[in-house]
Amino acid sequence: MTAKKSFDAPTLEWSKGTVKLIEQTLLPEQEKVVTIRTPKEMWDAIKRLAVRGAPAIGCAAAYGVVLGIHKSKAKTPAALLKEAVKTADYLATSRPTAVNLFWALDRMKSVATLEAKTMDVPTLKQRILDEAHAILEEDKAMCHAIGRNGAKLVTKRNKPFGILTHCNAGGLATSEYGTALAVMYEAHSQKKNIHVYSDETRPLCQGSRLTTWELMRAGVPVTLICDNMAAQVMREGRIDIVVTGADRIAANGDSANKIGTYGVAILAKFHGIPFYIAAPSSTFDLSLKDGSQIPIEERHPEEIKNGFGKWTAPRKAKIYNPAFDVTPAGLIAGIITERGIIEKPNTAKVKKHLA
Amino acid sequence: MTAKKSFDAPTLEWSKGTVKLIEQTLLPEQEKVVTIRTPKEMWDAIKRLAVRGAPAIGCAAAYGVVLGIHKSKAKTPAALLKEAVKTADYLATSRPTAVNLFWALDRMKSVATLEAKTMDVPTLKQRILDEAHAILEEDKAMCHAIGRNGAKLVTKRNKPFGILTHCNAGGLATSEYGTALAVMYEAHSQKKNIHVYSDETRPLCQGSRLTTWELMRAGVPVTLICDNMAAQVMREGRIDIVVTGADRIAANGDSANKIGTYGVAILAKFHGIPFYIAAPSSTFDLSLKDGSQIPIEERHPEEIKNGFGKWTAPRKAKIYNPAFDVTPAGLIAGIITERGIIEKPNTAKVKKHLA
Repeated sequence: MTAKKSFDAPTLEWSKGTVKLIEQTLLPEQEKVVTIRTPKEMWDAIKRLAVRGAPAIGCAAAYGVVLGIHKSKAKTPAALLKEAVKTADYLATSRPTAVNLFWALDRMKSVATLEAKTMDVPTLKQRILDEAHAILEEDKAMCHAIGRNGAKLVTKRNKPFGILTHCNAGGLATSEYGTALAVMYEAHSQKKNIHVYSDETRPLCQGSRLTTWELMRAGVPVTLICDNMAAQVMREGRIDIVVTGADRIAANGDSANKIGTYGVAILAKFHGIPFYIAAPSSTFDLSLKDGSQIPIEERHPEEIKNGFGKWTAPRKAKIYNPAFDVTPAGLIAGIITERGIIEKPNTAKVKKHLA
Repeated sequence: MTAKKSFDAPTLEWSKGTVKLIEQTLLPEQEKVVTIRTPKEMWDAIKRLAVRGAPAIGCAAAYGVVLGIHKSKAKTPAALLKEAVKTADYLATSRPTAVNLFWALDRMKSVATLEAKTMDVPTLKQRILDEAHAILEEDKAMCHAIGRNGAKLVTKRNKPFGILTHCNAGGLATSEYGTALAVMYEAHSQKKNIHVYSDETRPLCQGSRLTTWELMRAGVPVTLICDNMAAQVMREGRIDIVVTGADRIAANGDSANKIGTYGVAILAKFHGIPFYIAAPSSTFDLSLKDGSQIPIEERHPEEIKNGFGKWTAPRKAKIYNPAFDVTPAGLIAGIITERGIIEKPNTAKVKKHLA
């Protein structure tokens, strides 16, 4: 097992009653760490994508609950619980698609509800903080397990094994190491000869700003392309597998991820290239029968029209800006989780895998 | 027939011994017309995409030849011819993919070679200018004919007929009206209820900067999307046909066009949406058996890393930046030319159509 971090600053960490975050909107030009002191600041950080990526959002939200109660003047455990629940419900409104957000907040609420029955206020405060720490630590362990499971798909050979990825499902999207990128970090650490192609991922360029930055820092060979070059790169025989993350996976394996993932999956199918999703099991939402029930966040038009500090479209142009799409299970060769790989996912296999 | 211009400034025009061009790199924020006085200035304008689009490049290059000879001090027709040929050969090095560039320059050279045998210097100068005018006027007529032929594909109905396009094959890419966009302008002028989806077209954003701008000015309903949203928009049932331009078409119908077109064609196929190419017959290069022989221009990495005056990727990131790709004839429902539509193109049908 390689426990090496994917890069040298943590995505987020608890520090003396605050949360320290890499301000991801400033990457790659500035590596700034911001200090989050209140639930409102955490809500903003999630909303404006200072912290992003489904698993990282879960961790951030868990600590956001802690920020809501750790300086509380509540005199009874019941009062503290009420504040924790209120904070969690507030943080749940920050973004709609990634299920890990709701999963982490539900977990925080459940623990607080249970423990409020027996603990006094200071103990309950510590218990809530410990739960956030546990979510973070479990995420780290899950990412490394996903990396080990996924790296088995990578053949050791002389010609580079080409892996295409979309958006950023890396260390920056999780507590560390990532999900899709964990596969690449792990294969690289096993001295397998890989070459990653990173889709730019418009409009917010997580692929160029974050994935390319992360992989370069970790010494993993990476070539950046625009989203619309993926088909050409596949046609040239440069890609052996595609691996992306996911923000929510329905009971049948349909997977929501960053806009463009669905298109990449179709292109992979056309070229006979296996398309994989890498995500912890907390990404599954078994309450949804299929992907049609996953809510898709639509974001601000200016992300497209004026995303680079310059107007690249007429100011009054009509825009459609869905932030996610759903890749049907039928296009997915396998879902890599911390438990293994669900090959050709369907409802029965997903149920069995998570049991 | 609708002879209305698609917008109110010509892409390029001859004006008192110079060529006036819309500086397309500044659109949509600035509508600046630049004056081109020498072949070197024209070479630069083509290279840096101040004028772009296969048919417009042909017209611009033809006038570029005129700029090389119209103030010539040559004393004999043979000497003038030599200067014209030298200028044409120089302009041919500006960009490698669009065949219309070579087609127009060959035509200018042929005319000059033929007429130099009988004309005196002033008459030959005028004849060369007239040939450039003829190329421009023929391009206009061809664009309108393409529009009329293509508009037959658009059904008149209450629900908007959705047309997706990639890059800019509009008035700005031709003398006026465009090729792919001619279909939309013509259908719109026939009061057909269309809605255009314009791919942004990274890295240079011809879709957001030029196509969206043109269509909005002409009052054609248009929604801008990022390239990676095309699959989602198709899946949502918003698209009835895809129409793009082409920079070079091989004898079998394989078509080179802006990078990303090939991917869009695959996505259209997957969703059962017909994919059309619209291009004048001068776009065919019958010397090439198939698309594998079309040279693909690779452009500068900074177009992707720093395309808008801001670094959106690590400065040292490795980039792959092919400017074009080739859509195989098998993915093309039809090629719309000024002569009609070649349905399901192949070598025999292309040959017959152009005969």
